[in-house]
Amino acid sequence: MSKDLPENTARVAHIGIAVRDLDEALRLYHEALGLPLHGRESVEGDGVNVAFLPAGDTELELLEATGPESPVARFIEKRGEGIHHIALEVDDVAETLKNLRDRGYRLIDEEPRIGAGGVRVAFVHPRSTSGVLIELCEKGGDGRP
Amino acid sequence: MSKDLPENTARVAHIGIAVRDLDEALRLYHEALGLPLHGRESVEGDGVNVAFLPAGDTELELLEATGPESPVARFIEKRGEGIHHIALEVDDVAETLKNLRDRGYRLIDEEPRIGAGGVRVAFVHPRSTSGVLIELCEKGGDGRP
Repeated sequence: MSKDLPENTARVAHIGIAVRDLDEALRLYHEALGLPLHGRESVEGDGVNVAFLPAGDTELELLEATGPESPVARFIEKRGEGIHHIALEVDDVAETLKNLRDRGYRLIDEEPRIGAGGVRVAFVHPRSTSGVLIELCEKGGDGRP
Repeated sequence: MSKDLPENTARVAHIGIAVRDLDEALRLYHEALGLPLHGRESVEGDGVNVAFLPAGDTELELLEATGPESPVARFIEKRGEGIHHIALEVDDVAETLKNLRDRGYRLIDEEPRIGAGGVRVAFVHPRSTSGVLIELCEKGGDGRP
């Protein structure tokens, strides 16, 4: 199914999935569905243990809370397990934020901040995006986590 | 960020997003974020109007209910707008279903059924998948919608 995509089409850098138990989730996604496991990491600052599973040119990121104060724990408490956010890779995060702000969209981060791997990232508020928490991440990194 | 992926890595065929208003969602994803719009379709059988926006080797599918009885309308009523399902492309849907069943995972479709474009598809129950409604779709199609 090859499509005639423009060169600058945004990529989905990753899909973040909030799970209660990382090992249990890996039994499904890695062992049963056969997605490769490209590593696990604890990101203390974000209160998450993460497992990375590439799928085509994107990646599933399974996110397990490290404690009850973790944003992932609060998300699960409120909404249950499930997809937490999707990360869209864009050429220029600052320009995209300005564009969104000018159009009246609500942002979580008014300015880009530096995410894991030194990549500029910013979150758009789900009230502006049909309920989807969108992370913008600048090309050149994977926006982890 | 090139990764050494095995040849048979599953691709995310699409990410389905339940929205209240397709035009409003397109103002964000197409006009503001710049994702290309590859068409719109009404799928009467599923009670949805769909817009397709490619992003790298996957695709966002914005799903708007055609009426209050549509599964998308019921999803939004229960959970609000947001990501409805993700579709994983696999080599053989029947074999994947058997493998999942043998491991005790709960399925929505016990056997593959024919989806749009004549492609074999099947859904796995979100109770078995950390809250994510997963559509399996066989290579060779795009599992639309």
